[in-house]
Amino acid sequence: MSRPLQVTVWNEAVHEASGRPASMATDYPDGIHGAIADGLRELLPQAQVRTAVLADPEHGLTEEVLAGTDVLLWWGHVAHDQVSDEVVERVHRHVLGGMGLLVLHSGHFSKIFIKLLGSTCSLMWRNEAERELVWTVNPTHPIAAGLPHPIVIPHQEMYGELFDIPEPDDLIFISSFAGGEVFRSGVTFHRGRGRIFYFSPGDQEYPVYQQPEIRRVLANGVEWAAQPDVPRVAPAVDHPPREWFA
Amino acid sequence: MSRPLQVTVWNEAVHEASGRPASMATDYPDGIHGAIADGLRELLPQAQVRTAVLADPEHGLTEEVLAGTDVLLWWGHVAHDQVSDEVVERVHRHVLGGMGLLVLHSGHFSKIFIKLLGSTCSLMWRNEAERELVWTVNPTHPIAAGLPHPIVIPHQEMYGELFDIPEPDDLIFISSFAGGEVFRSGVTFHRGRGRIFYFSPGDQEYPVYQQPEIRRVLANGVEWAAQPDVPRVAPAVDHPPREWFA
Amino acid sequence: MSRPLQVTVWNEAVHEASGRPASMATDYPDGIHGAIADGLRELLPQAQVRTAVLADPEHGLTEEVLAGTDVLLWWGHVAHDQVSDEVVERVHRHVLGGMGLLVLHSGHFSKIFIKLLGSTCSLMWRNEAERELVWTVNPTHPIAAGLPHPIVIPHQEMYGELFDIPEPDDLIFISSFAGGEVFRSGVTFHRGRGRIFYFSPGDQEYPVYQQPEIRRVLANGVEWAAQPDVPRVAPAVDHPPREWFA
Amino acid sequence: MSRPLQVTVWNEAVHEASGRPASMATDYPDGIHGAIADGLRELLPQAQVRTAVLADPEHGLTEEVLAGTDVLLWWGHVAHDQVSDEVVERVHRHVLGGMGLLVLHSGHFSKIFIKLLGSTCSLMWRNEAERELVWTVNPTHPIAAGLPHPIVIPHQEMYGELFDIPEPDDLIFISSFAGGEVFRSGVTFHRGRGRIFYFSPGDQEYPVYQQPEIRRVLANGVEWAAQPDVPRVAPAVDHPPREWFA
Repeated sequence: MSRPLQVTVWNEAVHEASGRPASMATDYPDGIHGAIADGLRELLPQAQVRTAVLADPEHGLTEEVLAGTDVLLWWGHVAHDQVSDEVVERVHRHVLGGMGLLVLHSGHFSKIFIKLLGSTCSLMWRNEAERELVWTVNPTHPIAAGLPHPIVIPHQEMYGELFDIPEPDDLIFISSFAGGEVFRSGVTFHRGRGRIFYFSPGDQEYPVYQQPEIRRVLANGVEWAAQPDVPRVAPAVDHPPREWFA
Repeated sequence: MSRPLQVTVWNEAVHEASGRPASMATDYPDGIHGAIADGLRELLPQAQVRTAVLADPEHGLTEEVLAGTDVLLWWGHVAHDQVSDEVVERVHRHVLGGMGLLVLHSGHFSKIFIKLLGSTCSLMWRNEAERELVWTVNPTHPIAAGLPHPIVIPHQEMYGELFDIPEPDDLIFISSFAGGEVFRSGVTFHRGRGRIFYFSPGDQEYPVYQQPEIRRVLANGVEWAAQPDVPRVAPAVDHPPREWFA
Repeated sequence: MSRPLQVTVWNEAVHEASGRPASMATDYPDGIHGAIADGLRELLPQAQVRTAVLADPEHGLTEEVLAGTDVLLWWGHVAHDQVSDEVVERVHRHVLGGMGLLVLHSGHFSKIFIKLLGSTCSLMWRNEAERELVWTVNPTHPIAAGLPHPIVIPHQEMYGELFDIPEPDDLIFISSFAGGEVFRSGVTFHRGRGRIFYFSPGDQEYPVYQQPEIRRVLANGVEWAAQPDVPRVAPAVDHPPREWFA
Repeated sequence: MSRPLQVTVWNEAVHEASGRPASMATDYPDGIHGAIADGLRELLPQAQVRTAVLADPEHGLTEEVLAGTDVLLWWGHVAHDQVSDEVVERVHRHVLGGMGLLVLHSGHFSKIFIKLLGSTCSLMWRNEAERELVWTVNPTHPIAAGLPHPIVIPHQEMYGELFDIPEPDDLIFISSFAGGEVFRSGVTFHRGRGRIFYFSPGDQEYPVYQQPEIRRVLANGVEWAAQPDVPRVAPAVDHPPREWFA
């Protein structure tokens, strides 16, 4: 397969529109989606990266866009409820058919993540700008390639256990916070033919997505989740005659 | 914990109401739910077993019934769409809070199973009354206790791979069929605080739920899924102060 | 099954014999094995708990002792090499046959643990008496019953990732340390018919095994690993005739 | 990474030397290792494939050979005991350091497989030239790419459950046999930095390794297990100062 990877970065972009927090103006002058897209373009120069936001028609996630997307990244926080169920169904169908999905930070409470995982996806949190250390516990996983051990994030919102998710297929990263909490901060799941990677570091109040190591994780995640050779068809019922293989 | 286990056997009971297939009259004179409940009463004499069906008000699954249920068994086939979304939400909430759930046979396409697993749950099937052999691949799992290897089911509908489910937490049984297909016929999942066991043998056309070994599997499954000491509360967001444990 | 559980606590007991560190005299007046055994007797009054040490004939682990042991606990640190290969083979055979095994702290480098897991079992460590927090990430696992979240251990040796073990069957506890490291501190494995639980807190320099929450973990672990109804026979080659089940 | 993959196919080559079974002369004129190597050369033309046998000095697996091997394939049957422990230790060390390992058919009883997995690796078997069907249960795993569902092997030795292995990291294939048995015929494990793939089809009495679909599985397995960019170093103890990352 030699065509360029097609990547879509989705952001609710509500913090951007409201101008709050004020630090967004300096941390994310092009929006969180802009920063994430920049990082991917830098590290995956062969990929074609576009962005889409909640305010776009159909949230920018039409059938055509999804059909042409190898990997979708999802950032949402305060507007999960405003995402239409129809678009969620559409994204779900594409994930089951083979589209990769990276769910980021507060996206743990997005409709699409909960629909794919089936649990509450709740967690413990506290926002006091504390240091997060991201430790690799699966060092030969492709998503962990080229990273320091640990990644040091100077200021970040704390996400702590219990993270109410099904047992992950791969546990790649565990974070600790200055306050002492731990969090399974990088985990993968498979649903249908699709690959899903959840990665918690990244927040509207801190310039985490500008940090080179975090950009490396996201680029690795995109490469891992992409399956350009898988036909975009979800598993379906089959009804063979007896001894059909004979 | 010494109170008796509370078990609710749910059946859509549409085959029973329609009298089709005609073999139901002899195979399941008290309905599929009646046969399953009889088996549980026989093997778990200390348990209190009741039944509920689609036609009951609120499908017989009121908040009060679920709050008083340690383990719910679910059999459905032709009427999945008639189960109200409100009841599915309620069952889902109780599973995440700790209620056990056994999903049986064609229940793989029930709303509740799909909502918990997040994939299509589709499979391959063929109904030609062929022999199914159920092999244990996890011999010290409590659900496998006291079973022959294999269980021989003389006549059964074939369910074959690909079974489109997430990777199970435990793979306990693999079946083969006379036609040569295989199926992961006994698998477990955890969602929230709840334990889920899917078991495929059992069909409206064959008296599988009258077979002693199958009854043993269901009784083992009920005992495994029951968590009478877990308070019925799903994991929820927690928001601790920094160094709250100090 | 109503006979009492048979538990054997094994300790190399070299620190005890040498009187080093001096704190052993006050922290563990009856030895580490004595403290562990006391905790089990307190919380599992129905169990019969004995101890065995390296200096005993056959290290106290004769065929007869192992055949009469439901769960073996293993503490070793500086004398792994002095454990005879013959005894290790014997313990290995009993684990595969169904004996439970709890491997504690520096036992990660014991011959028996490495033989069962197949990897180096190496880790990162530092001994500066720092605070360890033990977080539960699998709250309905029997080993996590009745514990605070987190368990706070005031002073402990740091064990950190990368812990070079196979992917655990269950990940129950993750610890953080004052220095910022994390560790998968409570993990389970199955080998043959046996259940294995590794738990890292506990060290010769700190009175961790006197702490009530840690004693609760070990008692829970013993109850989880015990399979008194499993005949002590490892899986073996079977050679059936064709259609042997017909 | 653009250097060619380095692959070593190891065979005890005792059937070849003894001329028994006589069918070897037509099924495997260049030996089982020869047939496997031919298949890899055909499907992975960029790889450099060599062979080694038990009778070679150091079984052909010197430190130099292993250091230059990305993936080792292992076929053994009647001479497991003749493999020297020193060579097994060497192979083990390289696997933990990142060398890929494919263990084939009766290699389930090889010293290296048992050393890596820690269980008996026993199974059920019967040799009556019966049909094996190999079903894919993980359709987007790289090892399953480009395969029919099922693969039909006309004549094969039966391997059946219980296969006494630890829970695999990935379950890719499940086989059924004409006699009705099932077997987890394609499974993966990780140990240290190494990737391990066990694949059961293939026997000295049947020309299974000449079958195109089987060759495809082995080629896929080699590509999956190869990690040419991983430095050949097993995880080891690290001993950081406190706050070493600050």
